[in-house]
Formats: sequence, C-alpha cells, structure tokens
Amino acid sequence: MDLSRSLDVIRIVSGKTEKVRDFVVREISLAIGVNKKELVTLQCSPGKLEYLAIGFLLSQDFIKDKKEIKRISLSEKNCCIEIDLKENFPDIGNFSYKGVIGSGCAGGITFLRNANLPGFALPKGEPRYFSRRILGLMKKFQNKSSTFKDTGGVHSCALGNQEDIEVFAEDIGRHNAVDKVFGECFLKDIPTEDKVIFTTGRISSEILIKVAKRKVPIIISRSAPTDLAIDLANNLNITLIGFARGSRINIYTHPYRIIGEE
Amino acid sequence: MDLSRSLDVIRIVSGKTEKVRDFVVREISLAIGVNKKELVTLQCSPGKLEYLAIGFLLSQDFIKDKKEIKRISLSEKNCCIEIDLKENFPDIGNFSYKGVIGSGCAGGITFLRNANLPGFALPKGEPRYFSRRILGLMKKFQNKSSTFKDTGGVHSCALGNQEDIEVFAEDIGRHNAVDKVFGECFLKDIPTEDKVIFTTGRISSEILIKVAKRKVPIIISRSAPTDLAIDLANNLNITLIGFARGSRINIYTHPYRIIGEE
Repeated sequence: MDLSRSLDVIRIVSGKTEKVRDFVVREISLAIGVNKKELVTLQCSPGKLEYLAIGFLLSQDFIKDKKEIKRISLSEKNCCIEIDLKENFPDIGNFSYKGVIGSGCAGGITFLRNANLPGFALPKGEPRYFSRRILGLMKKFQNKSSTFKDTGGVHSCALGNQEDIEVFAEDIGRHNAVDKVFGECFLKDIPTEDKVIFTTGRISSEILIKVAKRKVPIIISRSAPTDLAIDLANNLNITLIGFARGSRINIYTHPYRIIGEE
Repeated sequence: MDLSRSLDVIRIVSGKTEKVRDFVVREISLAIGVNKKELVTLQCSPGKLEYLAIGFLLSQDFIKDKKEIKRISLSEKNCCIEIDLKENFPDIGNFSYKGVIGSGCAGGITFLRNANLPGFALPKGEPRYFSRRILGLMKKFQNKSSTFKDTGGVHSCALGNQEDIEVFAEDIGRHNAVDKVFGECFLKDIPTEDKVIFTTGRISSEILIKVAKRKVPIIISRSAPTDLAIDLANNLNITLIGFARGSRINIYTHPYRIIGEE
C-alpha cells in the first residue's frame, strides 16, 4: 500500500481560488494481537508494519529476545498483525500502555532525572563522529523521505553508522517511526550499540528512553529536545544533538563524541 | 513555572565549536487522579494544567457536563491534579486510553470513514470566513507563541472567532495543546460551535475527532492532514484546511465556508 494518496484540493492563494491535484499522507489503523488476544490498535502509516509491531513490543518491554517470538502473521488487507510469543504473555486486562502517554511513569521519570541508573546508562567514550560526517548523513537521511516531499505529513527515523544510513522508516507518528527502525534492527540482528539515531521529530523523554533501551549512544534531530530528554541523556551518557540544519548542530550532552574539525 | 529553561549548549557551525546559552522547552509529568484513583500521567508542558486535565477527560468522553465536576485541585509543585466527579467514575482497572494510541478504535474509525454518523455530523452551511481573515488570524495565532520562538519545541492551538483569537495554549504535545484549549472553553462556558480551531500540528484522525466532538466547524493547520482525517472531516461536514502559510491555504473539505475574494 502506498504511503500517500492523491486527491482534489481547493487552493486559495492571495484570495484567488483554484482546484489542484495534491498528495496527502495515508493513515491506517493497525490492530496488534499477541497470543490470540487483542493488545492495541496503533494509528500509523502503511509499510514496515511487522517492524512497527515488534518495535512497539520492544519499547513496552514485552519482548527482550528474538527467540521469544514464535510467529508473526501480518494481514495487510485487514490491517492486523498476530504475534505468537513462546512465553505466556502478561494478562492484557492489566496492560496500561505505560510510556505512550506516560501512564504510571511519573515516578519512574523523576527517578531517571535524578539518578545514575546503573545498568541502564551507556559507557562514556566511543564512538566518535566528525560533525561534518554527522551532518552529511543527516542530509542524506532527510533526502530519503520522498513521502515527506510529496505530503509534508510524515516523520522519519534512521539508524546510521560512520559510512551510511543502514535502516530507514517513515510514519505519521514520530514514535512509530522510531519503533519501526528498532523493530527492523531487532528482527534482522543489526547491532545498534555504536550507531547514531537520526530523527526529524522533537526529542521528548519517551523518544530518549526508546533510544537508551537499544543502547544507541548518539541521537540527532533536526528539531528541538525537551529539558527532561536532555536531563535523561545526561544521566544515561547519551550524546543528544538538536537543530541539525545546514552546517549547524547544537550538542546538549556528552559532546566528546562529536569532533568539530576534520 | 516557566515553559522554558536556559542551559549551556555546544554549538558547532561549519566545524567551528562555541559554547552558547540557549533556551529549551520544559517537559513535566502531570498525574491525573479522579475520585481518589490514579487515572493517567501525561508528559506535557507546564501551564494551564487544569484545562489539560479537563480537556483530557472531555476527549476521552469521561465528562459531558460541567455540573459533573465537584472539585479540581492542582498541586503544581507535585505535578498532580485531583478531580472529584459527582457521578461514580468507571472503574480505572478497565480504562484503556481509547483514542490516544487508538486502542480498540479500528472498528470505530472504519465505521467513521464509511458512514454519515448521524448525531455526530455538523450542519452544513454557516459560519463563513473570508480567506484573508482566516490567514490574518493564523498569523496572529502563530505570533502568540513566544515559547516556540525561544525553543522551537512546542505546538500551539487556539480557538478563534471572526474578530480575534479567544483561547490559546502551548504544549510539547499537539494533542495536549488541543485538550488545553477545549478544557478552558468547557470550564469558562466559551461556545465553540461557530468558531475556528488553529493548530501548528499535523491533523490526524484523533485531532479531527477531538474537534468534531466540540462541534467546531473549521480546523486550520500550518501543517499537513492525513487522508483519514480528511475522510472524517468530509463525513462530519467539517472544513479542513492545511498548509496555511503566508497568503496560501489548501482546503480539503467543505470549501463553501471559506470565501476567496474579500
């Protein structure tokens, strides 16, 4: 299914009315079932739906290891995906989407803001990237989204290494785009530990936590971070970069990983 | 509490490193309790937190009438708000955030896409706005967000009439900004039926449904809509306008409410 669709639009420019054909981004509902029980329905973009579902389960800490997955069955036509897990899945009646709108996370996040989080924090030090390299990859990343060029209606996310963009995803939701990237890495055994996450969306605490869980040491966005995401990145030894535009970046935390002059 | 905070940032421009003082947007956790039970914690911006909580309850169809509210008690210091409702609130163990990430909404939204939705659809016809007037209000609306100018990290939402912006809110989440505006309208008895909703964020199905529930006939954004939001707006007789920038707008549905030449 295409990520966009064309339709008729009335355009008014300086008071003058015209009818034009334009592209808009598609939005679908993806129902995710686990072990024959309905878990959640996500509003999302078509494409990479297996990765989205697995990325969502990862973000929610429902799976940790690929061996836990017995079967993934996607019906694109019906916009639903069935995932069978080997272990008994926790009862769905008790599932409350922690993290998505932050339910029950207040304590956790306050803890994160103030603590060192042993076991969760990344080692300081490697990898190191030239700022010019990062900006070159950022440009390449942004040029990949033909859907954004057509519709202006999607966010993108990518995993990159020193040389290139390795994994790329687009979605109407910035969270979904991140989940699609990590879902693909998980299913294809692509290491994330020494890489960079690129995103077009703002970096809030929840995006930062997703990146920390996959142990990615650098996150870079063309948009703004929140102060809570910065505090978390600081505590977790993640290099957080915002406003990556043209030849400019803002480094908010752990700048030693970025080298100015090449 | 301020919506933004200043901190030190390492800026690299064309390979040259400098240390600058910059503003970033604050992110807090607001715990909402209803009738002495914890309902949800939202990640949000400070400010207008009573309106956010009430707007959230409205969006979730938990309240319909102001008389149902006995007491609202905000502790800004502890980032929590207690709301006492007269009627017994449905058991929180069964609450599954329908609509926020679309849980269980697939059927509902498919239904919405294909049906006329009697009782939910707005009357066709009034009000009518000159495109020049709408664009003038849009400009005024966007100029109101000093937090965006400082930090680039918030979305804004406003309710406007033929003359002016009546209600305005900012938040790190585009959903929260909309909920803040409708929460304020609800508590202050500000009619929404013949008004316009202005937003900086993308118009997805969930934003459109919030606007439809408050019976606002026109929504205008500087960003893109999704195809599902357009289908819903079409069925519900809402005028959906996107990409409102400079002297230009795109009208996706029910264009008769917008008059080109003044």
